[in-house]
Amino acid sequence: MTLLSRFKQGGMRLTRIEAFSDGVFAIIVTLLVLELKVPALKDHGSVSELSHQLVELMPKFLSWLISFIIVCKFWLNHHYVLGLARHADYAMVWLNSLFLLSQSFIPFPTALVGEYPNNRLAVSLFGAMFALNTLLFMVLQAYIVRNLIKPELAATQDPHGLRKAFIGPASYLLGAAVAWLSVHVAFVIYALTPLFYITPRHYRGAVRDRQGEGAQ
Amino acid sequence: MTLLSRFKQGGMRLTRIEAFSDGVFAIIVTLLVLELKVPALKDHGSVSELSHQLVELMPKFLSWLISFIIVCKFWLNHHYVLGLARHADYAMVWLNSLFLLSQSFIPFPTALVGEYPNNRLAVSLFGAMFALNTLLFMVLQAYIVRNLIKPELAATQDPHGLRKAFIGPASYLLGAAVAWLSVHVAFVIYALTPLFYITPRHYRGAVRDRQGEGAQ
Amino acid sequence: MTLLSRFKQGGMRLTRIEAFSDGVFAIIVTLLVLELKVPALKDHGSVSELSHQLVELMPKFLSWLISFIIVCKFWLNHHYVLGLARHADYAMVWLNSLFLLSQSFIPFPTALVGEYPNNRLAVSLFGAMFALNTLLFMVLQAYIVRNLIKPELAATQDPHGLRKAFIGPASYLLGAAVAWLSVHVAFVIYALTPLFYITPRHYRGAVRDRQGEGAQ
Amino acid sequence: MTLLSRFKQGGMRLTRIEAFSDGVFAIIVTLLVLELKVPALKDHGSVSELSHQLVELMPKFLSWLISFIIVCKFWLNHHYVLGLARHADYAMVWLNSLFLLSQSFIPFPTALVGEYPNNRLAVSLFGAMFALNTLLFMVLQAYIVRNLIKPELAATQDPHGLRKAFIGPASYLLGAAVAWLSVHVAFVIYALTPLFYITPRHYRGAVRDRQGEGAQ
Repeated sequence: MTLLSRFKQGGMRLTRIEAFSDGVFAIIVTLLVLELKVPALKDHGSVSELSHQLVELMPKFLSWLISFIIVCKFWLNHHYVLGLARHADYAMVWLNSLFLLSQSFIPFPTALVGEYPNNRLAVSLFGAMFALNTLLFMVLQAYIVRNLIKPELAATQDPHGLRKAFIGPASYLLGAAVAWLSVHVAFVIYALTPLFYITPRHYRGAVRDRQGEGAQ
Repeated sequence: MTLLSRFKQGGMRLTRIEAFSDGVFAIIVTLLVLELKVPALKDHGSVSELSHQLVELMPKFLSWLISFIIVCKFWLNHHYVLGLARHADYAMVWLNSLFLLSQSFIPFPTALVGEYPNNRLAVSLFGAMFALNTLLFMVLQAYIVRNLIKPELAATQDPHGLRKAFIGPASYLLGAAVAWLSVHVAFVIYALTPLFYITPRHYRGAVRDRQGEGAQ
Repeated sequence: MTLLSRFKQGGMRLTRIEAFSDGVFAIIVTLLVLELKVPALKDHGSVSELSHQLVELMPKFLSWLISFIIVCKFWLNHHYVLGLARHADYAMVWLNSLFLLSQSFIPFPTALVGEYPNNRLAVSLFGAMFALNTLLFMVLQAYIVRNLIKPELAATQDPHGLRKAFIGPASYLLGAAVAWLSVHVAFVIYALTPLFYITPRHYRGAVRDRQGEGAQ
Repeated sequence: MTLLSRFKQGGMRLTRIEAFSDGVFAIIVTLLVLELKVPALKDHGSVSELSHQLVELMPKFLSWLISFIIVCKFWLNHHYVLGLARHADYAMVWLNSLFLLSQSFIPFPTALVGEYPNNRLAVSLFGAMFALNTLLFMVLQAYIVRNLIKPELAATQDPHGLRKAFIGPASYLLGAAVAWLSVHVAFVIYALTPLFYITPRHYRGAVRDRQGEGAQ
């Protein structure tokens, strides 16, 4: 029995995969705030010194905000995509783990870009990481749609959905390239890209999804 | 199809939204204690030096305690409000994410006010943040009550409930203003305000809520 | 309507209370390891320097181990006690939150005693905190047994159970007192006390508990 | 009634054990990234300095990656093994807690080996810890298969499964021994060993597992 065929096995319920993933998502969004360190003040009671230090923290607030919104967006799409599957096999579990690996990496480039918002490499890596995350998510989605989709939802999938979805990583990569010209434009691109995904794309499926879930 | 109408879609079960939110709540209350750092002692065995250092930590204990109680209060009300909904749509998911964004921010002003309990700006921000949290929660609640409420629970809602609920953010904002006159009075206001919400306000709904939940 | 009577309301399912509590338990046991900091080595490749530093960390390993076992013990008993309840009311939610408050505090005295294992105050606080945790847990248990117990489980409860359960906090307080004479004996007492609770005490209830749960 | 016989009691549902374990797994994989600290740059905008510092971080990336994959592997096998049990008793809960204790320890040796990748003791401990984790997992699995297995799944178990499973800890221990000769070969062994477990070994059981779970 080959390694590849073993991956196709394992008809597992989705409950624990969702619980594990939800845990990872919840921890990532909450850990992000740990990068916001309390500034050291010489005069503990000084309002002007504290307000000045908080303004200095602005890039960290901004990178925290962008990452939080993007992780929530991934969570929503993850929720939608797992709702398409009738059960899980080992290949899906590992594709999901790889996606979560890239998700759990987000705090590092977020901290990096918050610390060095004018460093072109840091800003570029920030976008490259989101492109990688989106690509890994698309692989997971494609695998589920091709192999594990609930029969009653198969007809609702847009056959050109995957091609359209490449807009996302392309946009993040554009930001990562633009960062070498202007970090400010790159940040604008990073902040706007999630709007493509702010609701799951295959909305026809979502309507019927609830029925499918109810029957589970 | 407009962006706005897309938000009205997505009839999702509440299970994963609850799991994701519970994860965030649980992590916030547990992370709060990480601000309580072990003090550095010159004489490792000295009881008097340690007891003196622990007294110095008192403002951090106090801000930790207030934040913990307030997050638990939000959790309880969140539990109640999500119990009113028959299902979720994308708008609700995003309103919930915005609320969790403001929740996950709590450790930062908590640490700030624990470090600088006599800094008027720090104490004022502490209250302003709780006001913002309460407002975002009220938006979530109002959206659910208007759009997603279980039919059998609709009659149990107090039509003046939302107006009464403004007492909460108003009280936190009062504390944030008073902080510029006396930080001690501000702390008292912050500690008392949660009592308004210590049980969900629409208690008639809560009694029938269980029946609604049982039928889910 | 008084504040006290409001607490008796709110017939809530236990699902989210369990999920929130499980999240807090899981984070506490996992955060404990963060106190084990990588030691700074002068010679990065030196085996003898590293082994020497790891031996120095021994008190931290030990306090980590004791706290981990004790939190797991609390989790198991919490699982058992919540299984006795037919539903939750607001008073139970707040008693549970107070218990979780004391649980989430555990990493601080654990870190304290790991850093200063020969400081009598640190060792004494370690035991006092476990006594407080056990007392708060007993209050939660007593409230559930008196107000919320499933009718079919009521007969299985030991009427002297609560009195016997005082052995736990008494033993921890004994350790906290002994710490002022000998920290080593105190550690032995702390390590042995969880054995009283290593399985839930009212075992007759536990057998029928599963049936009760199955009927839920 | 002896302590040992008490452990055989407690017919508990698996739901909360899974939730607690999933929480611990999720936090471990997400905490691992916290060891990736933002490097301190003299020139904040310098691309060459940042890229040089990121290359320096490579051992930390590598140890993070290995530990992440191994924890995901444990999660998948844990999911499988708990799916074999018809319910839990107290002995299983404690064996599970001991396994989670060893899991939650993983961030420490991971950080150690990431900081000192050429220290033979650090590299050796890294492997020894994975061997210990695997052994504790095998004890949990053996207990479940012997005492708690669902009757309909008993026939699907490989009678030689446990003996074959010793390949895992033996391989990790081999790596831990080889570390004293060459740390690079040890890392290769650590990275390859998870492939043995990349899907649960008793695949015949897994196929029927879903049916068993459905009937739960």
